[in-house]
Amino acid sequence: MGKLGILAGAGELPRRIIAACRAADRDFFVLAFKGEADPAILADVPHATVRLGAAGEGFRLLREAGVAEIVFAGGLKRPTVTSLRPDWRAAKFFARIGYRALGDNGLLSAVIAEIEGEGFKVVGADTILTRDVVPRGILGRVAPDAQAEADIARGLTIARSLGALDIGQAVVVQQGLVLGVEAIEGTDALLARCRELGREGPGGVLVKIAKPQQERRADLPTIGVRTVEAALAAGLRGIAVEAGSTIVLDPPGIIAAADAADFFVIGVEPG
Amino acid sequence: MGKLGILAGAGELPRRIIAACRAADRDFFVLAFKGEADPAILADVPHATVRLGAAGEGFRLLREAGVAEIVFAGGLKRPTVTSLRPDWRAAKFFARIGYRALGDNGLLSAVIAEIEGEGFKVVGADTILTRDVVPRGILGRVAPDAQAEADIARGLTIARSLGALDIGQAVVVQQGLVLGVEAIEGTDALLARCRELGREGPGGVLVKIAKPQQERRADLPTIGVRTVEAALAAGLRGIAVEAGSTIVLDPPGIIAAADAADFFVIGVEPG
Repeated sequence: MGKLGILAGAGELPRRIIAACRAADRDFFVLAFKGEADPAILADVPHATVRLGAAGEGFRLLREAGVAEIVFAGGLKRPTVTSLRPDWRAAKFFARIGYRALGDNGLLSAVIAEIEGEGFKVVGADTILTRDVVPRGILGRVAPDAQAEADIARGLTIARSLGALDIGQAVVVQQGLVLGVEAIEGTDALLARCRELGREGPGGVLVKIAKPQQERRADLPTIGVRTVEAALAAGLRGIAVEAGSTIVLDPPGIIAAADAADFFVIGVEPG
Repeated sequence: MGKLGILAGAGELPRRIIAACRAADRDFFVLAFKGEADPAILADVPHATVRLGAAGEGFRLLREAGVAEIVFAGGLKRPTVTSLRPDWRAAKFFARIGYRALGDNGLLSAVIAEIEGEGFKVVGADTILTRDVVPRGILGRVAPDAQAEADIARGLTIARSLGALDIGQAVVVQQGLVLGVEAIEGTDALLARCRELGREGPGGVLVKIAKPQQERRADLPTIGVRTVEAALAAGLRGIAVEAGSTIVLDPPGIIAAADAADFFVIGVEPG
């Protein structure tokens, strides 16, 4: 394995990947996106910072650092054309695929293809954080009951359809009723509004799956203690995520939080 | 045409249907659902009020009033089993279709079949409010541009999928990006959250279609001046609804509000 280039956006994931590289004694270089990556993670690590639209500079920095493989780490806000301020290299990319692609199917696939066209290999975060990939089955001691199993099944059907339409990957279902569906507002906002939408009786479940195969290398779903806390605040009873394609940011932490609240976290096959 | 029984829920629709019956000199009887229908509409009209769960009493009242046809008018909050407090007749219905159906596909279809099994004919609000059904084409003077047409096309694809999954019928798309998807929170809440989610550049569109064929008799989408105002507040440029299957609550009012704001309202074929 050659040197790993970590394209660092928002959230916990870049820090985890840096830690995994250090634990495995693997060479790495962090390319941090301005306004997205937490500057605190950059202390004592080889890194550079670029604007999201500065593709030419980004490729140059990655090459100068001797990077061979690339991993996407953490969230990026979907930019608008104006905020992106594409440099010449980025503009060339958009001239080919069209700016409309910023909101269309396949943008991530096109970005991956572009990066690989520059000679880098793009790998999924799951290949670095192998020990933190959600396995099939329950993570703690709590298992879903029959009603929750039915809600998970309905949620999976819906999440697959949403994914195929490039909308979002998360849905909340309670007693067969779809309380909410995620689009660009993100899972946190989805859970926040479900606080007001829940019905009496057994609470609902959050079902979250990975993007369709092509794009999942660039954007794997992650869950952490905060996800469990937000789901509990929304009155939910559990979370079902896609086994093999979801990263747990803090496995002991999430299990402790879930077990303490009689809350389930389960890895399922999306079918 | 025999006497019309108006099952009155929340909103403007019951009032409009009462006015249409009066204008057409048609006999009618309003069965108002407690906590849903606006009591102000009941002054000077033949009516009775029942709990939503009191199906036996409801059927008795409709029969005693000599009702032949039934129209659903206005919104009902999806009840929980507890809040429904089904009487014997309602319990018999749920014993057969299962309480789980409260959140499942086909509840409305089952309700329609049940009512027709009692000898009433269920008709859509569009058959009463014939002059207020959205025609194909623009309602005012503003037409969508090419970007808006593309957003409408994407919105229709998504809304059809959502309808088939019995989730919701409304979606907001801006420059190809899905800003939000409606589940049980309703169109008002969807528009409210899109205020924070819009991107720079040309504003998005609200696309709202009717439920799949079976259920649309019981729940036609409506738009009114308030819908235009909420969409404008969310930064949208227009609304596309299903021609032939959407009720405009106040045609002159909605056209005036849209034209004044350079906002389009268009009836489209959902395909």
